[in-house]
Amino acid sequence: MIIYLYDMRLQDENKKEAIFDATIKLVNEVGFAAASVAKIAKEANVSPATIYIYFRNKEDLLISIFLEINKKKTSASMEGFDGSSPLKESFRKFWYLSFKFISQNEDLLQYHDQFLSSPYSELVDVTQSVDGFQPFLSALESGAAEKIIKKVDFSLLKAFVFLPLGTLANTRTSGNFKMTHQNIETAIEMAWDAIRLERNEFLP
Amino acid sequence: MIIYLYDMRLQDENKKEAIFDATIKLVNEVGFAAASVAKIAKEANVSPATIYIYFRNKEDLLISIFLEINKKKTSASMEGFDGSSPLKESFRKFWYLSFKFISQNEDLLQYHDQFLSSPYSELVDVTQSVDGFQPFLSALESGAAEKIIKKVDFSLLKAFVFLPLGTLANTRTSGNFKMTHQNIETAIEMAWDAIRLERNEFLP
Repeated sequence: MIIYLYDMRLQDENKKEAIFDATIKLVNEVGFAAASVAKIAKEANVSPATIYIYFRNKEDLLISIFLEINKKKTSASMEGFDGSSPLKESFRKFWYLSFKFISQNEDLLQYHDQFLSSPYSELVDVTQSVDGFQPFLSALESGAAEKIIKKVDFSLLKAFVFLPLGTLANTRTSGNFKMTHQNIETAIEMAWDAIRLERNEFLP
Repeated sequence: MIIYLYDMRLQDENKKEAIFDATIKLVNEVGFAAASVAKIAKEANVSPATIYIYFRNKEDLLISIFLEINKKKTSASMEGFDGSSPLKESFRKFWYLSFKFISQNEDLLQYHDQFLSSPYSELVDVTQSVDGFQPFLSALESGAAEKIIKKVDFSLLKAFVFLPLGTLANTRTSGNFKMTHQNIETAIEMAWDAIRLERNEFLP
């Protein structure tokens, strides 16, 4: 009986994953409006009725996928995060792991970005979706208080750290950026230099 | 007779400008596809036939506007550029003037960005459209050769200088960035810190 229940759950998970994958594929190909539940069901090889077992409606499905992608991205970027490490080290690690995740999951990121610029984004508390990054953001705040990095608005942090990161990691936006070890190291260095404070400014 | 010709030309320029303004307004509201020549003519208060006096077709009109915006943006950003000034000074001036132009011409930039992500962009030699920036890019190259700034690919320069600049200057993308004097100064400093080399790395 236990085995039977386990199998059921596994089957459920597989079906849900198939629906997720099919939705992401379709949305990336034809956009949110044209990706109907019927088409998604066909692509996922399930009946439309099956989709309504897992999701209230198309909106619920689209939001669930967005949140799931955010969760994956956060846990990949924050893997092994240690708030007691030197900030530069944590920064480098975070940057590298985020870069790796984005560059290896362009389909997820394409969906993610399209979602954010669609009207659906208004149905989601986007601030909540960055909760998982909080330990890293707190480390940056402490770093600013300790005058290791500049004390700047989140919008500036975003513009000089997260935006270049996302742009360079994505072949649709990275231009002629070659993802060599050296180039990735240079990008991390540039992001760090943008936010760090020169120590000697604060020496007596 | 001379006055008559001058009036004609002035009238031509006014009409052309009205067509430009109408197209930008319409494209920003309804997109490239829905902005028909008929609708543009109505908005510009001219007959569709008048549009075909100045432009071969809709494509020609859309491209002409894109190139015109590029020209305006370049000349605003490069105003008073002096290759013999210290690089940091030129950099600061360029950044500030570009920021000012973008933040004061959001409608033009919205059209510009939409154009670049539309299929029309394939009809334009985009490298040619940055020709006007060449003196600034050359100054950056010299700076790299002189080890004042990092020697990096254009894609990295774009990611850490031009992209943050464009994002912060535009209220549609700048998030909660407040365009105060202090914040703009900090942004310039961050961009410069991202590209500059620490001098002491090269002291004996």
